[in-house]
Amino acid sequence: MKLVAIVSKPEKPELVLIVPELIQWLQHRGYDIVIDSETARYIPGSADVVERAELASRKPELLIVLGGDGTLLSGARAVAPLSTQILGVNLGSLGFLTEVPIEDLYQMLEAVHSGECEADNRSMLHAMLVRGETVLSEFHALNDAILSKSTIARLVSFEIVINNEFVSSYRGDGLIVSTPTGSTAYSLAAGGPILTPSVDGIVISPICPHALSYRPVVVPDHVEIEIRVRNADDEAYLSIDGQIGIPVHQGDKLVCRKSPYRTHLLRLRKTFFEVLRTKLKWGQK
Amino acid sequence: MKLVAIVSKPEKPELVLIVPELIQWLQHRGYDIVIDSETARYIPGSADVVERAELASRKPELLIVLGGDGTLLSGARAVAPLSTQILGVNLGSLGFLTEVPIEDLYQMLEAVHSGECEADNRSMLHAMLVRGETVLSEFHALNDAILSKSTIARLVSFEIVINNEFVSSYRGDGLIVSTPTGSTAYSLAAGGPILTPSVDGIVISPICPHALSYRPVVVPDHVEIEIRVRNADDEAYLSIDGQIGIPVHQGDKLVCRKSPYRTHLLRLRKTFFEVLRTKLKWGQK
Amino acid sequence: MKLVAIVSKPEKPELVLIVPELIQWLQHRGYDIVIDSETARYIPGSADVVERAELASRKPELLIVLGGDGTLLSGARAVAPLSTQILGVNLGSLGFLTEVPIEDLYQMLEAVHSGECEADNRSMLHAMLVRGETVLSEFHALNDAILSKSTIARLVSFEIVINNEFVSSYRGDGLIVSTPTGSTAYSLAAGGPILTPSVDGIVISPICPHALSYRPVVVPDHVEIEIRVRNADDEAYLSIDGQIGIPVHQGDKLVCRKSPYRTHLLRLRKTFFEVLRTKLKWGQK
Amino acid sequence: MKLVAIVSKPEKPELVLIVPELIQWLQHRGYDIVIDSETARYIPGSADVVERAELASRKPELLIVLGGDGTLLSGARAVAPLSTQILGVNLGSLGFLTEVPIEDLYQMLEAVHSGECEADNRSMLHAMLVRGETVLSEFHALNDAILSKSTIARLVSFEIVINNEFVSSYRGDGLIVSTPTGSTAYSLAAGGPILTPSVDGIVISPICPHALSYRPVVVPDHVEIEIRVRNADDEAYLSIDGQIGIPVHQGDKLVCRKSPYRTHLLRLRKTFFEVLRTKLKWGQK
Repeated sequence: MKLVAIVSKPEKPELVLIVPELIQWLQHRGYDIVIDSETARYIPGSADVVERAELASRKPELLIVLGGDGTLLSGARAVAPLSTQILGVNLGSLGFLTEVPIEDLYQMLEAVHSGECEADNRSMLHAMLVRGETVLSEFHALNDAILSKSTIARLVSFEIVINNEFVSSYRGDGLIVSTPTGSTAYSLAAGGPILTPSVDGIVISPICPHALSYRPVVVPDHVEIEIRVRNADDEAYLSIDGQIGIPVHQGDKLVCRKSPYRTHLLRLRKTFFEVLRTKLKWGQK
Repeated sequence: MKLVAIVSKPEKPELVLIVPELIQWLQHRGYDIVIDSETARYIPGSADVVERAELASRKPELLIVLGGDGTLLSGARAVAPLSTQILGVNLGSLGFLTEVPIEDLYQMLEAVHSGECEADNRSMLHAMLVRGETVLSEFHALNDAILSKSTIARLVSFEIVINNEFVSSYRGDGLIVSTPTGSTAYSLAAGGPILTPSVDGIVISPICPHALSYRPVVVPDHVEIEIRVRNADDEAYLSIDGQIGIPVHQGDKLVCRKSPYRTHLLRLRKTFFEVLRTKLKWGQK
Repeated sequence: MKLVAIVSKPEKPELVLIVPELIQWLQHRGYDIVIDSETARYIPGSADVVERAELASRKPELLIVLGGDGTLLSGARAVAPLSTQILGVNLGSLGFLTEVPIEDLYQMLEAVHSGECEADNRSMLHAMLVRGETVLSEFHALNDAILSKSTIARLVSFEIVINNEFVSSYRGDGLIVSTPTGSTAYSLAAGGPILTPSVDGIVISPICPHALSYRPVVVPDHVEIEIRVRNADDEAYLSIDGQIGIPVHQGDKLVCRKSPYRTHLLRLRKTFFEVLRTKLKWGQK
Repeated sequence: MKLVAIVSKPEKPELVLIVPELIQWLQHRGYDIVIDSETARYIPGSADVVERAELASRKPELLIVLGGDGTLLSGARAVAPLSTQILGVNLGSLGFLTEVPIEDLYQMLEAVHSGECEADNRSMLHAMLVRGETVLSEFHALNDAILSKSTIARLVSFEIVINNEFVSSYRGDGLIVSTPTGSTAYSLAAGGPILTPSVDGIVISPICPHALSYRPVVVPDHVEIEIRVRNADDEAYLSIDGQIGIPVHQGDKLVCRKSPYRTHLLRLRKTFFEVLRTKLKWGQK
């Protein structure tokens, strides 16, 4: 392992102390380092800085995320085509994805350095926004692709098609297409089930459906899901991992498949269920 | 009864036939008539036209709504301070508020004309948007006041205070403060309970709450509900009956009380539960 | 105030210390004391013991409950026709009804003794099981009346009638008719809303309804709710406050109204919302 | 194909006409026939009758189910170890499993006879009730295994363990372990997601959980799920496909895995989503 990338959450004053120390630790062990511009704020003097969106061009072997799940999600999309391992360090409360507390950072890095740390390979979602015959944009998301109403609209209206078969029409606030990893994020708030990371499935969760009998649907991850927008222009928008917002037009299609890429999350000793119990305050033994 | 107002839903071609006939019917029986500009499109020649928002200044004794629940909601707000009776006529499918089908219009009008038709007096919500010491806007809503995230925001964050007592902080997509009448509208889609119209209560329903243990709360309608916005500017907005959208700022307060006004809905023989069974496809006897 | 009754939860070894001390404290201040047979186990020697169901015959002015919400519920039903004030002391975790922790017992009793403690008067439910023309049994419940399937049955089937109007037929695991106080008990687990104690309403919550569009319904507390059992014999049973189980037959009716009685709960400084926040782990300010 | 078995739902008078005609049709085409004792009621004279539970010993190539989903579920368990194809014919309303209406019976049989009809191979659940070291009973269920409270109990209490890892403790009315096929049955009523039949997953759905943050969990179908009963004796029971009820004791374990067997459902032209739309009254195109 040679090149380590570091990305940081904005406005985290504690990083003034953390970042220089971390860089020194890594350099001391012979790693090259590249950082995003957020991280560069915390280190005086020269550094190898790259925009987060350009991270993949540098092919880092390890990506250290200092922040929360949101920072990790954007980092994961940035390095999706690579086999980069990602270490998510939270600066405050436990995240579903950033489960290493800052006080365990170096213990964890020692384990990574000595090759003792295994990665959990999470499936991603390939989402394409298609207008007519044109692919307008394309993403590899770790959590979800969401079609939802814009501020001014009352309801959005969709048709759901799976493997070219009509499933149902739908009206409501929106629809979430989620990976198992994303099932504990927005889909959960919308009433969706929890999928453990190793389920080969995709969840489609309605947001405040107009008809009361709609329910979240889990489909195998080898299908193609197509959501056709029936609303007028600019009344709905697409968001990816809750971060990118793109207005969609009547007739646009969101096409989702399992991505050929995976996110390689370095895991602490905590299991998926331990994180779930802590985050959801589930009963202990 | 002397003055009858008519308001119409836009883009309903069948009104070309319905409106002139209805006006003739009313004039024949000695009523004066005032119509909104939407309705004026369907009648050639001169007519007494007033903006919907100005309807109250004319003090109509009866308001005929041709359209759906949305049209009725805006009409109801317009005449809220008056004792105007409202007759909701749906042009297509049964509405919760517009339950008279167009084919029953004249039978229903005969009953109204001869004084045989009773009104159902629905409670309304008085909602004020307060910034600092200033009341920015004020509404009397038949359905609901909704604080929700704007398109770009991920989550909104509120504090709920009832009768000056802190209830809880809340993060999620938004909050709905609803009358019993509004409980079968957006609040129902968000997972709220159904309140029959005569319950002296107000429902507070969370929209996709971040914490899973949040639940809709029903409070008596003599309390004052205050929702304090903790998000940054323009990340949330207020909407009234799903129709009016106003950006809200950090520190703004939505203050809701029972309105002194009521909406006087003229009812068909159908009961609340008959409408509910039909709309929700509940089991029959 | 002269006569104090004490009822206790079974199998709570710590009561060996608590009960004698409590009795001494009360006698020292001139109170007469009557205890139930559970409480009698913890005090050697003679005592005035009465069955819990017979408590009302003794007309205690104060009822001290040592245990959990279940013990308080049975005590509240026992003294329902009286104006007895009830002090609920929990021996472990905070209850919705037993909110005084054991370590605050004497501080609380001092307040009661000096008349500084106010009671929260909670509405109760009058539930009658009717077969043909006969009232088989009758209860005044603080929480709820529940009709549910028995172990062997797959589904129960009911008709819901409110003020003699047919509301809907229903199939599922059961139905809960709940007071506002009961809305935080079983009804909440079944997906029902929270009603603050002062709402003049009754909640009807379905348990695992067969049709997905059923939702909890809140009705005013001045109506009469009738649930007609359509299943065959012994496939359903009625339970009161989750404690009393009575098999019901096809054709039986559960008739529920607001009770003329109220439960007079002595309250700590904690408000309803404080208890809710603690019990449901809702977000703090 | 040589031997055809027929099983019937009890108390269906229309079978007096249907059964003899069906048997004649099959005999005319050279099939041998075996029927269960329910079916035997509808045919005068001699017939080859076998108890439903003994069906597997006769190794039928085709099983015709006349009735509803319940009849099919018991037939499917009976022939689980075989590769018997199952034709589910409903006598009234469309079932999730019995989707052939009686008027299409012969058209469908012609297709089966000529080999034009394909089977949908549904995964089953292998459920074992274990006490100490002993397997008390063992089932191959098409829908689900359910641990739930008995009539007298208030709550049941479990520990959930997956692949020997503690997941969480749980209190509530019960837990459902369901196949994708069972996800549209009881699990759906309890709030679970819909899994399309080809998802390689198992759903664990809580029934009225005491803690509000519990949610249905979907796990891959290659794991072992163990539910440990913590309640006292006879306060909980196990049921299989909603049909078989077995009291369970404190310390008992329900162990669930994917079954090596599959149910081979003969399908009409209707797809899974068509049935779903019809049964749940989802919106049409």
